[in-house]
Amino acid sequence: MRKVILGVAVSLDGFIEGPNGEYDWCMMDQDYGMSVFMKRVDTLFMGRKTYEMAVAMGDHPSGFPKFKEYVFSNTLKTVKKDAILVNGDIKRQVEEIKSGQGNDIWLFGGASLTSSLMNLGLVDELWLAVHPILLGGGKPLFSNLERRVQLKLLNTKTYNTGLISSLYEIIHD
Amino acid sequence: MRKVILGVAVSLDGFIEGPNGEYDWCMMDQDYGMSVFMKRVDTLFMGRKTYEMAVAMGDHPSGFPKFKEYVFSNTLKTVKKDAILVNGDIKRQVEEIKSGQGNDIWLFGGASLTSSLMNLGLVDELWLAVHPILLGGGKPLFSNLERRVQLKLLNTKTYNTGLISSLYEIIHD
Repeated sequence: MRKVILGVAVSLDGFIEGPNGEYDWCMMDQDYGMSVFMKRVDTLFMGRKTYEMAVAMGDHPSGFPKFKEYVFSNTLKTVKKDAILVNGDIKRQVEEIKSGQGNDIWLFGGASLTSSLMNLGLVDELWLAVHPILLGGGKPLFSNLERRVQLKLLNTKTYNTGLISSLYEIIHD
Repeated sequence: MRKVILGVAVSLDGFIEGPNGEYDWCMMDQDYGMSVFMKRVDTLFMGRKTYEMAVAMGDHPSGFPKFKEYVFSNTLKTVKKDAILVNGDIKRQVEEIKSGQGNDIWLFGGASLTSSLMNLGLVDELWLAVHPILLGGGKPLFSNLERRVQLKLLNTKTYNTGLISSLYEIIHD
């Protein structure tokens, strides 16, 4: 079964964006495990806003492998031709994708899709890059979780810049 | 100069208490660095609510050393005879305490005192015991931070239960 991994950069106080949407605090000076992660996944899950932002940013970032992209939205009618639109019964479709062929899946955001998939029990792992900064506000890593979620720490690595990278398995009851 | 260290248990999503004030998720099965920390500090800073809760809980917990206690409140008129009430110009008084004799100081909570001291630049270190759980809501580690705070990771230790203990220095501009 393919795994869905929520992989994000987060401040020590638990924000994925600053109060004005900033992500200038995200460290880019090192690989921080990204190239290994990139080999593990071949597919992206993203919500509408994240998709629209990615489209607006235009060209494919260099060094970023070509992923199979699923865009989750109940309002969009179409997406770019090499992406796949998912709407309606998310649970059934995600389970189908997870049962299919392929490597693991990177849950790329945003907050709303993340919460939906978390609450449906469809996320398997969290990979957090905890940055040595307090943002004091902004968009929290999770919103609208319906219940506690127990985690199992699989792996952690500390970098000389103070970034702590941690991989957790989500324990499904 | 004595240091003020905010030392708390926190969920991976950044809460120090669950949605109903729960802290049953805090791991107590191991020492988790507490006995070393206890030798480093000899003084507690606490807000009114934390103080009242401690008083209500009654007797001194066994194994807990005797600390010098400062209670920060602008509404209390008196505190128990072995504690010291601090009100009015917090900044001056905390600076005076920090310049005085003694070991380091454990900022014990709660949220309101923590925010005040953080915003006044009077906290020197953060010591977090990050628990492998998502609470999904509750009392956040910080509220009302007025600005970003840069941190320097001093030390981190991962336990077999998945708890990650991290000590950060707060970088004052």
